[in-house]
Amino acid sequence: MERETKLKAVLVIADGMADRPLKTLNWKTPLEVARKPSLNHIAKTGICGTIDPITPGTPPGSDTATLALLGYDVYKTYSGRGAFEAIGSGITISKGDVAFRCNFATINEKQIVIDRRAGRIANEEAKKLALSLQKAKLETSSAKFLFKNTVEHRAVLVLSGAKLSAAVSDSDPEQTGEKVSQVKPLEETAEAKSTAKILNELLNKFGEILKKHPVNEDRVKRKLPPANFILCRGAGTIPNIKTLPELYNIKAACIAAVPLIRGVCKVAGMKLINVKGATGTIQTDFAAKAKAAVQALKTNDFVLLHVKATDVASHDRDAKLKISLIEKVDSMIGYILDNVDLETTYLAVTADHTTSTLTGKHEGDPVPIAIAGYGVRSDDVDKFDERSCAKGGLDRIEGKSLMPIIMGLMGKTRKFGA
Amino acid sequence: MERETKLKAVLVIADGMADRPLKTLNWKTPLEVARKPSLNHIAKTGICGTIDPITPGTPPGSDTATLALLGYDVYKTYSGRGAFEAIGSGITISKGDVAFRCNFATINEKQIVIDRRAGRIANEEAKKLALSLQKAKLETSSAKFLFKNTVEHRAVLVLSGAKLSAAVSDSDPEQTGEKVSQVKPLEETAEAKSTAKILNELLNKFGEILKKHPVNEDRVKRKLPPANFILCRGAGTIPNIKTLPELYNIKAACIAAVPLIRGVCKVAGMKLINVKGATGTIQTDFAAKAKAAVQALKTNDFVLLHVKATDVASHDRDAKLKISLIEKVDSMIGYILDNVDLETTYLAVTADHTTSTLTGKHEGDPVPIAIAGYGVRSDDVDKFDERSCAKGGLDRIEGKSLMPIIMGLMGKTRKFGA
Repeated sequence: MERETKLKAVLVIADGMADRPLKTLNWKTPLEVARKPSLNHIAKTGICGTIDPITPGTPPGSDTATLALLGYDVYKTYSGRGAFEAIGSGITISKGDVAFRCNFATINEKQIVIDRRAGRIANEEAKKLALSLQKAKLETSSAKFLFKNTVEHRAVLVLSGAKLSAAVSDSDPEQTGEKVSQVKPLEETAEAKSTAKILNELLNKFGEILKKHPVNEDRVKRKLPPANFILCRGAGTIPNIKTLPELYNIKAACIAAVPLIRGVCKVAGMKLINVKGATGTIQTDFAAKAKAAVQALKTNDFVLLHVKATDVASHDRDAKLKISLIEKVDSMIGYILDNVDLETTYLAVTADHTTSTLTGKHEGDPVPIAIAGYGVRSDDVDKFDERSCAKGGLDRIEGKSLMPIIMGLMGKTRKFGA
Repeated sequence: MERETKLKAVLVIADGMADRPLKTLNWKTPLEVARKPSLNHIAKTGICGTIDPITPGTPPGSDTATLALLGYDVYKTYSGRGAFEAIGSGITISKGDVAFRCNFATINEKQIVIDRRAGRIANEEAKKLALSLQKAKLETSSAKFLFKNTVEHRAVLVLSGAKLSAAVSDSDPEQTGEKVSQVKPLEETAEAKSTAKILNELLNKFGEILKKHPVNEDRVKRKLPPANFILCRGAGTIPNIKTLPELYNIKAACIAAVPLIRGVCKVAGMKLINVKGATGTIQTDFAAKAKAAVQALKTNDFVLLHVKATDVASHDRDAKLKISLIEKVDSMIGYILDNVDLETTYLAVTADHTTSTLTGKHEGDPVPIAIAGYGVRSDDVDKFDERSCAKGGLDRIEGKSLMPIIMGLMGKTRKFGA
């Protein structure tokens, strides 16, 4: 098929963009209220529907939702957040390694957590502390470790070089005023027991190093909370999945600023594109991301464009901000519409999950989806929002069905049967 | 979230309420013909759809349908009707026990079934017979048994105290004029073989006791069919499932008169509420059930209100009766609407399956669903019936998705991923 060889697709995922109707918006959702000509154009010219990212009613994480929207069965493949976070932060992880998300935190002498973020410690200070922590010596195991700070109080820890397991509990109580938890094995295996032991030893050693570290002495002098303990959570290994290039014989790229999403995309075999000004915050440079996506299409068959901002506004329960960010997403998509050829490029838009501006949490309600492009079975829907898209021709599909549908339009899915 | 801690839900299941269009109703369904302002109000203010209780085209039993609507995967968890029936009749069953539904029946000297219900023998007579049967002694096994009459000709048999299996055939041919069947193992296991042997021995011993029992001598004198044999069917064990309180951290209660449904709800960890006048028949006290549901909401997070009457009318192929019973269900729901606060309570209405008034049987067609409450994505549907709800925003969902959807609205589902 000559036509198929040059077909491309862009998938825009606006994190947490879907919502529930809000009383303060006269029982409309932020998407229903926002001015969004470009999103509506995709809905009007394309085929619409709703997606259960995981299963109906199940609130997805951003990692599981993205994995699902990339076509993977998360119940079979998801192996914890830690590895995605580490890979997304540029750390190389091998099969068998176990990775954790870590926080520099402030605890008191009774090991009660006073500040889970050590006053959002600055990158430079965290880096100095991390370099010192890397010198810690494990005594009871031959395991190796890598500790790396990422942004502010955030860090990543990777264990390797021993028989390890991700089936261990968190040391992070996830709440101030609670005591630091001992890490415990979550399975009755030698690997899980040994991993828990290694981790407890390491976290104690880290604590000793941090306690007397000059950076912390200085922070105390400046009346800032010392970063005197490392909390860790989300143990994970690399999931055993086939990459998108393997599955569909495509070149795929990802434009995302959030390390977690970058990690998922990297594992899925996508090229990570760095965009100046793309920050994963509400101040991100939407235009720069749009330009990068159009650029990336020239050398890739499939480009995922992920925007975090809409989720941030939802977690902050700020409907007005969410509406204005949806309008920025819309402008971003407008640029893509203006600069790609819909004769040869499919443009799909969705959210990775519903984040309720009322509860400030991820919810299990489905998300809207619209796909525009050559030969799609366009329907009567002319607005991109939760309720309009529910009337669309795609009906209600599972998250893991989206990628095969897009790849199917591009002629990249394989026939099953003869 | 303060709001979420006080959220509640009521699920009303009208047994077999869904139907197919009937020629005698000018190709409308009983639901489409019935006057039902309260059901329509839920459809109008809520989100609607259709549900395949099991899978499209599969006629569900009332036990499997209820299990599915409570969120369970019946293909993985269903373990036969017997145990539910026994538990719902107030009998305690332990793991490993095998329970059967039994009938007092009338057979002739050639073991041909003359009357599967022994002339719907009265409760008092059945009780006397059951007490005598309980004295039977098994000779070839150390297994124990419990035999208990329930309503009229119905009874329950529970085997315990040995290695048993539910993989045995029925002795009940389910048709008059047929010979009583020998119980056979349905698997090549020692447990199944032994269970079949025990059952055959026991049923023969029961037959001997019944043949010469004074109650039956008296029945013969009164020209009534003697209850001279026990037919059994539906071997079942307790399914290995997590309860609703375990899954969602809720307190759940059930208002149902039918033992089978009560058994399912009990196994799902729900409190069984007894309502005076709730009979599981077409004469049931609908108003008393509605009041009990409103009352139960005060101390429970989730209340299932089950009504059997609509199914009875369908099996009797009486469309007029079915319509009048749907109108009674509607009044019942009207009382609930008047007495709960939809700001904090979700109200969902559905049927457990389609029962065709034409065929008098359970059918595999989907059933309508409507969910009203705070923040649901209400749609354009304004009538509660099979065809109107099919246009709704929920689209077509699986039975097992309903409970997570309701629990998701209440903030009770757990996030998968991070």
